[in-house]
Amino acid sequence: MIKVALLGAGRIGQVHARSITANPDCLLVAVADANAQAARALADPLGVAVRSVDEIIADRDIEAVLIATSTDTHSDLIERATGAGKAVLCEKPVDLSLDRALAALRAADATAQPVMIGFNRRFDPQFATLKSAFDRGEIGKGELLSITSFDPAPPPVSYIKVSGGLFRDMMIHDFDMACWIFGGPPARISATGSALVDPEIGAAGDVDTAAATLQWDDGRICVIKNSRRAGYGYEQRIELLGAEGLLSARNMLEHTVEKITADGALSAKPVYFFLERYMRAYEIEWAAFVEALKSRAPMPVSLRDGVAALACAEAATRAARSGDTVDLTPEMLGAA
Amino acid sequence: MIKVALLGAGRIGQVHARSITANPDCLLVAVADANAQAARALADPLGVAVRSVDEIIADRDIEAVLIATSTDTHSDLIERATGAGKAVLCEKPVDLSLDRALAALRAADATAQPVMIGFNRRFDPQFATLKSAFDRGEIGKGELLSITSFDPAPPPVSYIKVSGGLFRDMMIHDFDMACWIFGGPPARISATGSALVDPEIGAAGDVDTAAATLQWDDGRICVIKNSRRAGYGYEQRIELLGAEGLLSARNMLEHTVEKITADGALSAKPVYFFLERYMRAYEIEWAAFVEALKSRAPMPVSLRDGVAALACAEAATRAARSGDTVDLTPEMLGAA
Amino acid sequence: MIKVALLGAGRIGQVHARSITANPDCLLVAVADANAQAARALADPLGVAVRSVDEIIADRDIEAVLIATSTDTHSDLIERATGAGKAVLCEKPVDLSLDRALAALRAADATAQPVMIGFNRRFDPQFATLKSAFDRGEIGKGELLSITSFDPAPPPVSYIKVSGGLFRDMMIHDFDMACWIFGGPPARISATGSALVDPEIGAAGDVDTAAATLQWDDGRICVIKNSRRAGYGYEQRIELLGAEGLLSARNMLEHTVEKITADGALSAKPVYFFLERYMRAYEIEWAAFVEALKSRAPMPVSLRDGVAALACAEAATRAARSGDTVDLTPEMLGAA
Amino acid sequence: MIKVALLGAGRIGQVHARSITANPDCLLVAVADANAQAARALADPLGVAVRSVDEIIADRDIEAVLIATSTDTHSDLIERATGAGKAVLCEKPVDLSLDRALAALRAADATAQPVMIGFNRRFDPQFATLKSAFDRGEIGKGELLSITSFDPAPPPVSYIKVSGGLFRDMMIHDFDMACWIFGGPPARISATGSALVDPEIGAAGDVDTAAATLQWDDGRICVIKNSRRAGYGYEQRIELLGAEGLLSARNMLEHTVEKITADGALSAKPVYFFLERYMRAYEIEWAAFVEALKSRAPMPVSLRDGVAALACAEAATRAARSGDTVDLTPEMLGAA
Repeated sequence: MIKVALLGAGRIGQVHARSITANPDCLLVAVADANAQAARALADPLGVAVRSVDEIIADRDIEAVLIATSTDTHSDLIERATGAGKAVLCEKPVDLSLDRALAALRAADATAQPVMIGFNRRFDPQFATLKSAFDRGEIGKGELLSITSFDPAPPPVSYIKVSGGLFRDMMIHDFDMACWIFGGPPARISATGSALVDPEIGAAGDVDTAAATLQWDDGRICVIKNSRRAGYGYEQRIELLGAEGLLSARNMLEHTVEKITADGALSAKPVYFFLERYMRAYEIEWAAFVEALKSRAPMPVSLRDGVAALACAEAATRAARSGDTVDLTPEMLGAA
Repeated sequence: MIKVALLGAGRIGQVHARSITANPDCLLVAVADANAQAARALADPLGVAVRSVDEIIADRDIEAVLIATSTDTHSDLIERATGAGKAVLCEKPVDLSLDRALAALRAADATAQPVMIGFNRRFDPQFATLKSAFDRGEIGKGELLSITSFDPAPPPVSYIKVSGGLFRDMMIHDFDMACWIFGGPPARISATGSALVDPEIGAAGDVDTAAATLQWDDGRICVIKNSRRAGYGYEQRIELLGAEGLLSARNMLEHTVEKITADGALSAKPVYFFLERYMRAYEIEWAAFVEALKSRAPMPVSLRDGVAALACAEAATRAARSGDTVDLTPEMLGAA
Repeated sequence: MIKVALLGAGRIGQVHARSITANPDCLLVAVADANAQAARALADPLGVAVRSVDEIIADRDIEAVLIATSTDTHSDLIERATGAGKAVLCEKPVDLSLDRALAALRAADATAQPVMIGFNRRFDPQFATLKSAFDRGEIGKGELLSITSFDPAPPPVSYIKVSGGLFRDMMIHDFDMACWIFGGPPARISATGSALVDPEIGAAGDVDTAAATLQWDDGRICVIKNSRRAGYGYEQRIELLGAEGLLSARNMLEHTVEKITADGALSAKPVYFFLERYMRAYEIEWAAFVEALKSRAPMPVSLRDGVAALACAEAATRAARSGDTVDLTPEMLGAA
Repeated sequence: MIKVALLGAGRIGQVHARSITANPDCLLVAVADANAQAARALADPLGVAVRSVDEIIADRDIEAVLIATSTDTHSDLIERATGAGKAVLCEKPVDLSLDRALAALRAADATAQPVMIGFNRRFDPQFATLKSAFDRGEIGKGELLSITSFDPAPPPVSYIKVSGGLFRDMMIHDFDMACWIFGGPPARISATGSALVDPEIGAAGDVDTAAATLQWDDGRICVIKNSRRAGYGYEQRIELLGAEGLLSARNMLEHTVEKITADGALSAKPVYFFLERYMRAYEIEWAAFVEALKSRAPMPVSLRDGVAALACAEAATRAARSGDTVDLTPEMLGAA
């Protein structure tokens, strides 16, 4: 049994707690949260101890920590946990600062401890089905990738202000999808954004509607579209044109019932948000982390992958500001 | 906490065990099975006692039993459990003999104990969505109902021989769907069947491909199609034409990925069988039983409903043999 | 150039006129109609002569006649036209009386003139695609066929009264589809009908909602559902379960636009009625007639096929009245 | 009757000839083509005279000309025809040179003769349905538009070399769609392209796979994706996210038949190319030109619209080369 501590008892921490306790190879032994009440609310019903981060880091029996705290603490916690000999699964993004994330990468690499970044969408059964078909060569060489990712409603502006901006907070998922599907980070990025949903978001210096175009050195192209507000639900779609065909992963819908009347044929909306769409992905993600840990295999989403997605977000943020295409340099990607 | 015993530790008993133990209002306290090894295999990992049926019936602490034994024991167990003051959830069909089921109905009615029959499809989220829309009047008065129900592959001929035949064993689910959607049993039934999938099934006196037509006294019509072998998966679809539109519940598919190549657009098959399609329905079914028990509300699928579906199966069996339309008499439906 | 006369200038005659004049191998030389005004309205803009039926039959230059008059005249006109050495394309049904149709079959057979019956649906590109795939063996041996055929709105009751009833007037198309797909007429038929849409239809002795079940001697089954009123449009669907898969031909829709809002995903209805759905089929039908005529090949829908569909309608009418399954005898099918 | 001359008897000229002759308000009186044989092949079967461009321009009886000659002749012919008092429908693009097109715009404006540019996709029933729904406010204010446009196979490299490049030759259609849907040209454009399909295309200085991002002054965004080779058919899709929902126009498919087997559910590909997809659009386009001419209404696609699309193509070409976002200036759009 792998003894696991959970750092962070917020919404996403609660999701992970379920995966950890449901996994037959794991024992959740401690929960920490800056908000003691939140920690207890999560830990008590599970019969798990509430402990401080320091205690958890110091406890040699704890083999793995899941970091689901606020983003500004990720790099520190990755460094401390790996420094203490623990395996880490850290929520995305690694950091809002690419430099800070690069430092954490160097530190963690020095410990040789396994670190996985929680890009849950890689474990979504729909996207995994698309990726497998592509990797089996079913549509030949990839040429033009398109990712559509709309949230149903924007987060509070207070959150937006500390989020690092749409490219680091929201599109980072899509950057990781693109890097994952095309097997590595792009060479250059251009991007555009607007505040169309809520002028407050614009006033906070951010955008809520955006597009980015990624290009790889061999010419492959990826287009990403984001909106903070689709209203009707969660748009999570991928389309990939290859030399021999097109693969697409469509939304998951609320149900399969259709009603045809004089008004037309009415069918279900996409499921509302990430908990509905990705609950299964979170379970599989945790199982994949545990499996890699047990078999001493490389982590399925490495810290370097997390840095690459952040480098894309950094480049896109700059590109959207300047209107110029921004190159991803080896330094940005943590080249040794 | 409701103390529950599970009678029958076979495939479907294992499904129910999961629902019982997952339900926060229930405690599974005993498992019985004629095959002691099967009983232990299910009970031991759950830390539940293996006991005899007699012990369970005699135990006054056990408030509810779930009957998932072979069909020929259902009527006896319903009578004994209700006679001992227990609530019952019994798997479908009530019995292979309509007369025996009617006797069990009279006996259970005399005890006034709650009995529910496990027609799981009523709790399928797809069908429940269709039913709710219909009951809200979204397509007006119902006129023509169509149920398509194909298994992926036939059961062994040894099973077929003791199954009571396709109409009692397989189409009984669809008869219940029809009675549920149209709010009561039909007035008359015609039916046809053939052994097309496997001549051994025909040699055993049964059919593997069948159609039945039900008509209500006010003229409403339902057509049911069954096949024991769709090969590619589990067809579970309902279409309902009303005065103002058409409602249909389509299959659940394995995934949402589509591949378009020169060969065409390839998308997912229906999920393979009832465990994939109806696992969620079994959970909801048990929760509905518990909820009715707690609130002393009528059971959502009564023993009388179970008898009505069996009466349809009896009528269809006779109709398929004679080629004549067979009326459902009040006696067949257990009229008081 | 084949010189063609059109008998009947009503709605369907106008459809055929378009196909005849558009066909480069044909010359429409005469139009006849009991209603002289209707005949002129169709003929004049095309620069075609209005003539009497007698004149047309007597004109040796006219090689082919298209019979689109009222049903009660079909048998007579088939006999007269073939007797005068002309090829015939006659609208469905051959007749309302099976005996009269059988007499026409004998008479036409004696002349050896080619006669085709206008079962337009065989030429619908959707159904033809399904049929070709089936004939290529793509789903193995056919087992269970299902035909759904709903009109958007019922015809006037005055029409219903002289129509011969739903089975002869409407379901006859579906009987022909079934015979076509399964390569010949069934052995027996059961049927049920109700007047749910309009009590006036019931008062006229007819039904507006019906189901029929056909069985072939080798056990294959076909289920047909009809409604005179779907409201939202024209349901024209076929599903065929074979030993190795399922083929289905879905409706043609008004457009491909989808709108997703908080209310759900709204897409197009089926096209409204037969002119929208089958206009192309009528053109192909006429071209197939002309092609067979030119190449002296057998007609793609023979008069015998027309009699078979009528025999099914006759059997279904009787079955719906008696509740019994009715056999199709060799005599009913015009056995030599 | 409007007397019409057709300049250009190539593939697209043949398409237009059909629309002109089918229109009851038009008389096709002359065909011109640099290739006399091609002109005769088109004109002779229609009983139409082959004449020189000079003769046609000089003929005062000819009220309208349809220009379907090679692109390098468009501006000249627009100027000569309008100068001679004729109405013009000219194929897209107006020109490969924006400056030359701007000069033609000034010249034509000076004559006040009606000029329409042949952006056929505006008349596609699918896109027109989307546009109408959007204009009725069904999804609120437009925010994020996405256009996917893939050809089934690239044209010959010899054609590519004189085409003006993908942005002017192919994506120009999509630029017009974007301007049409959003009611005017964007403020700025970024673009990227690669030669992935055929290295010869790259050697010719062009790309075959490209993406462009357009932004309007109020922040609205449009993303366009192009590929010269989808292989399986013609991808022509539009998606529009608005404040209250999403509208999408999907492909037209070859048929509605689906086959489900153990391999999955196989349905139809998109129709193969523009003749299959847009034949109806060409007819409607011509009818719209004639209607505007008859009612003296403004042309539904003005020469200025044609210039705007070309300005977008010009900007995108520059943006793809430089990696910078390029502004559309009033001068580029022919500001007075």
